[in-house]
Amino acid sequence: MYVLMDIMVSPSGVGVSISPYVAMCQKIFEEAGLTHSMHGYGTNVEGEWDDVMAAVKRCHEDLHKAGAVRIISHMKLGTRTDRMQTMDDKVSSVHEKMIAK
Amino acid sequence: MYVLMDIMVSPSGVGVSISPYVAMCQKIFEEAGLTHSMHGYGTNVEGEWDDVMAAVKRCHEDLHKAGAVRIISHMKLGTRTDRMQTMDDKVSSVHEKMIAK
Amino acid sequence: MYVLMDIMVSPSGVGVSISPYVAMCQKIFEEAGLTHSMHGYGTNVEGEWDDVMAAVKRCHEDLHKAGAVRIISHMKLGTRTDRMQTMDDKVSSVHEKMIAK
Amino acid sequence: MYVLMDIMVSPSGVGVSISPYVAMCQKIFEEAGLTHSMHGYGTNVEGEWDDVMAAVKRCHEDLHKAGAVRIISHMKLGTRTDRMQTMDDKVSSVHEKMIAK
Repeated sequence: MYVLMDIMVSPSGVGVSISPYVAMCQKIFEEAGLTHSMHGYGTNVEGEWDDVMAAVKRCHEDLHKAGAVRIISHMKLGTRTDRMQTMDDKVSSVHEKMIAK
Repeated sequence: MYVLMDIMVSPSGVGVSISPYVAMCQKIFEEAGLTHSMHGYGTNVEGEWDDVMAAVKRCHEDLHKAGAVRIISHMKLGTRTDRMQTMDDKVSSVHEKMIAK
Repeated sequence: MYVLMDIMVSPSGVGVSISPYVAMCQKIFEEAGLTHSMHGYGTNVEGEWDDVMAAVKRCHEDLHKAGAVRIISHMKLGTRTDRMQTMDDKVSSVHEKMIAK
Repeated sequence: MYVLMDIMVSPSGVGVSISPYVAMCQKIFEEAGLTHSMHGYGTNVEGEWDDVMAAVKRCHEDLHKAGAVRIISHMKLGTRTDRMQTMDDKVSSVHEKMIAK
């Protein structure tokens, strides 16, 4: 089951600047070989369900080890059975509709 | 790693009424032996990380089998290392602050 | 336009315990005369769009005044044109499907 | 009060393909003169609180007029008092941490 995920990881108890922790998760997605793309409010990640979920778990584990006392991740998980679709397909589809107007 | 989750499962391609599908997920959480509590915009679920994630996966798999062409789940996943906390603890904590004022 | 909202307000720069801040928002929803119900990961709030949004804005303003340097609110906003529906209706609808099985 | 928002608009009762509706919202953000950037799971939008919220409301109103029976928007709203920050600043901050490692 292929999944398109969006994830925003929020560690707390580490001060206002959380970018070093977000960078750690980016590295985990990278090392897991998952397609990923950061935006202003999270990261789009795609791949096989078990691989993606293993990376999310490692993200929580590693951030706790790095000192985050409390972590909340906000996630969107999308699966579909009608056809294969990537993140790029989704964005392209909207762009086509905008040009068509 | 104990996790407090909030999940809202949105199947599409099945018409406007999604309550039968939400009910299927409730049953999955129940059968998995996880503490869970439904509210107007999702379900609070708590338990060990792997057990909770296995239930979420089964939820997507079963809803696809039941005819949902596309599913998006919106989730919050909270873990902490300082102390054990349940969903009830979280709600109680806010109520105490409200009474104190 | 009637809206069913779910909101989780996360102040940062105020330590790990955020319950006093969550309690402040509860009081704002109460004073605004909005139907609201807290759960383990947020609060369901319902009412006219403008009233609900005014309360959310006041929530951010008051928490900043109370010392929160940074606030992120995670919200779900649902509107529909086919029929009037309350939060209680949504939960009841799922419960009926569970009993029917 | 300046706000950094992420929004994912999900109309239902309009079939599986929602891209024409997402394109309508993009146009609304554009016409409102708000800085916005689409990604695979939503759109980052930034501006003054009242301008951003007016655009979100117009988005729900216009999509209902266009035939969407039911709409759920998932939003993140971030405000801060310590310093001005744009979406680009947020992404740059993480990139710097990744290079530093």
